[in-house]
Amino acid sequence: MKSHSESALLTDFYELTMLQAYFAQQMNETAVFEFFVRRLPERRNFLMAAGLEQVVSYLTGLHFSTDDIVWLRESGSFSAPFLESLRDFRFTGDVDAMPEGTILFQDEPILRISAPLREAQFVESRVMNLLQLETMVASKAVRSVMVANGKRLVDFGLRRAHGAEAGLLSARASYLAGFDATATTLAGALYGIPVSGTMAHSFIQTYARETDAFAAFAHVFPDNATLLIDTYDTEAAAQQVVRIAQWLQEEEGIRIKAVRLDSGDLGTLAYRVREIFDAGDCGAIGIFASGNLDEYAIQTLVEGDAPIDGFGVGTRMNTSADAPFLDCAYKLAEYAGQPCRKRSLGKMTWPGRKQVFRQYDAHGLMHSDLLALPDEDVSGEALLRPVMRGGTPLYALPALSDIRAHAREQLARLPPALYSLEPAPKFPLEISSGLQALTRQVDEHQRALADSDRQRWGLEAG
Amino acid sequence: MKSHSESALLTDFYELTMLQAYFAQQMNETAVFEFFVRRLPERRNFLMAAGLEQVVSYLTGLHFSTDDIVWLRESGSFSAPFLESLRDFRFTGDVDAMPEGTILFQDEPILRISAPLREAQFVESRVMNLLQLETMVASKAVRSVMVANGKRLVDFGLRRAHGAEAGLLSARASYLAGFDATATTLAGALYGIPVSGTMAHSFIQTYARETDAFAAFAHVFPDNATLLIDTYDTEAAAQQVVRIAQWLQEEEGIRIKAVRLDSGDLGTLAYRVREIFDAGDCGAIGIFASGNLDEYAIQTLVEGDAPIDGFGVGTRMNTSADAPFLDCAYKLAEYAGQPCRKRSLGKMTWPGRKQVFRQYDAHGLMHSDLLALPDEDVSGEALLRPVMRGGTPLYALPALSDIRAHAREQLARLPPALYSLEPAPKFPLEISSGLQALTRQVDEHQRALADSDRQRWGLEAG
Repeated sequence: MKSHSESALLTDFYELTMLQAYFAQQMNETAVFEFFVRRLPERRNFLMAAGLEQVVSYLTGLHFSTDDIVWLRESGSFSAPFLESLRDFRFTGDVDAMPEGTILFQDEPILRISAPLREAQFVESRVMNLLQLETMVASKAVRSVMVANGKRLVDFGLRRAHGAEAGLLSARASYLAGFDATATTLAGALYGIPVSGTMAHSFIQTYARETDAFAAFAHVFPDNATLLIDTYDTEAAAQQVVRIAQWLQEEEGIRIKAVRLDSGDLGTLAYRVREIFDAGDCGAIGIFASGNLDEYAIQTLVEGDAPIDGFGVGTRMNTSADAPFLDCAYKLAEYAGQPCRKRSLGKMTWPGRKQVFRQYDAHGLMHSDLLALPDEDVSGEALLRPVMRGGTPLYALPALSDIRAHAREQLARLPPALYSLEPAPKFPLEISSGLQALTRQVDEHQRALADSDRQRWGLEAG
Repeated sequence: MKSHSESALLTDFYELTMLQAYFAQQMNETAVFEFFVRRLPERRNFLMAAGLEQVVSYLTGLHFSTDDIVWLRESGSFSAPFLESLRDFRFTGDVDAMPEGTILFQDEPILRISAPLREAQFVESRVMNLLQLETMVASKAVRSVMVANGKRLVDFGLRRAHGAEAGLLSARASYLAGFDATATTLAGALYGIPVSGTMAHSFIQTYARETDAFAAFAHVFPDNATLLIDTYDTEAAAQQVVRIAQWLQEEEGIRIKAVRLDSGDLGTLAYRVREIFDAGDCGAIGIFASGNLDEYAIQTLVEGDAPIDGFGVGTRMNTSADAPFLDCAYKLAEYAGQPCRKRSLGKMTWPGRKQVFRQYDAHGLMHSDLLALPDEDVSGEALLRPVMRGGTPLYALPALSDIRAHAREQLARLPPALYSLEPAPKFPLEISSGLQALTRQVDEHQRALADSDRQRWGLEAG
């Protein structure tokens, strides 16, 4: 049995009603769709592409099970021949995409699918669902990476992520964006991300005395215990940790690795705890902080030189709480060789297949992007790369560690104004002369067709 | 093979490190945890409980596979005897919970788990992950239900929900809160929710002429075609629909059911389209609206008497965009018969097992809640009901249609001030004298223990 996340029915119902209409009309010429973000969220100077690996996995595994087809039949909306055609339905198309970890901006295609119409249309819902989630989270997480100044960042967010897949893929997206580890065990097992975790307040509370809990945990993890010290009184607990640490070290050679603060004024508490530890000959015990953290809180703590060695970042990162969705779209750019575009109010798109060409300045920093036709004679680094041809991946996708390295290199090439939590001027995106000319042609062509359509029905031309 | 959402490893790593410490100390007395929301989001006057069915399914299916245990062994953090103990690890405890669809407020336990310590602790991450997602979405979706005035509401949000499970469970949560249908096909197959869907802009664009697309679709769905009319020019398309509808009706007996508007000023456009249809003898064609909708936009349209028959509500509902997480917690209330509470700054909890007793006024409307000890002699309706005993559900959980009916009844009993998008005064929550007395006892007990702990380590009492 397929899991829910792999089911072909994990799609908007309209994909299937459209497919039935295309089937009835025998329409299946090559269609080109592009996925892009229409507008960056207010608090994002750039986005980071993520989710391609999951999209490729979805496309290569896509098929309808017998149960799927039985359910569709019972829904009563579909013809028997159409349902029969779904038995052999597979993705046989081409994919070009920005490598994961690539920095991008609004109106830039992150992924392009070119496939027989029914396939290219059908995959819309899940392709968007995957790309928007991971790109959104990577783009949020990288902001903590920018301000953490190399301090350790751990994803703590499974419990308030939106379900199982959100927990898993936000662990993946934050790791590729530069986080160091995750608390989500299954993300370690699935993606090889280092896992991290120690104790909850409930652990302290199940012991009559706080120090009994500390000692018990240290005995079980003699090399790497991180003790949570804010359950009752943080400074009092820190003083107790000093005594216990000395005793454990002398009696049994056990070393407390760190403590965790999870509430209160983390900067002030960290400073007091550091003083207590240093005065008590516990300079080697680290301080880890968590609790309602986001990139702004981390920036304040880091800029204030709070003696904190690492941060657990959860809910606000995993849910991208200040921008919990991207204004993204998967739009038809070409059908049967004919470029097209939508002109709905506020949602106009550029027609035809497009490529993003990136220009760098003399220092190797990103200077501007050019949206152009793929075969146009322009300069710059082409960001969309071939990924699949004829339904088959062209190569093994990069390991997560390589994606992470690519993301790091991308960050290093960001102009300083964009490498900041402060809103920056929009990164320049130029439109090539070829694309502008094509847009005029498409508009004229569509206008002529629309006029003839209206005349056919006895209406005045537009 | 288990799916990711069913894996025992879908948990925070610290649950496992704590379990190993408990195992080493042979600690496994009965622990009581309660899940509650500390503070309502700013724009929520109440919450609606959802997710219990998924929690019960998780608890009854919980076990470690051999692969899980192999991976944990290879992680290097766990002892062989502890890993061996996980082979027989099952949930054998008790669950009490508010029925799904119940309206609740801050500081009120939605679910209580009473189980051997290791089980009650271990399930924390996934129980929170499920309850927070569905309760958050139901609590958002019901706001659209309150203002829609009976007009049809359809969940459109899969594409920008946070992954597969978020798409599925937000379809479920919005349906139980009063939505009428979902566009997410698999949610129809899994939960029996009516599915709905017609066409995308790309469908229009694959045809040279808009009216060809309209006619093609209507031929395939002769009884229930909903045509998307904003791809190029909404009013022009409406005029074309009038001509086509007449022709299709006369020639082939085909009836256009509705049109959909997805951009622009929906109220104004709906009014214009309605005029065009009524003038063209197409009074029976409905108007459906979508595009960036939330409860505020729906309220404005409904209050303005926009001639719209139904709404597609997506992203902002499924992600609960104005409050994309709940400040919720799963806290230890009692261990080995000893009530306890956490006193971390800003995160204090009430100790011991608790029950919510609801008082109603003479009209049957909710008047106030009382947080009390379960066996305290107080009046009111007890909201937490027995669900599982000894790891086994006590009865078949209610069908989604029954949950939906319960949600509707709950809404009908809301005081008028809370049945509003406007911020309302906080619903009264009283603390019983029994709970207040217990809290004093627990604090005194913990203070005495803390003092003795500090004296043991040669520190001054707090």
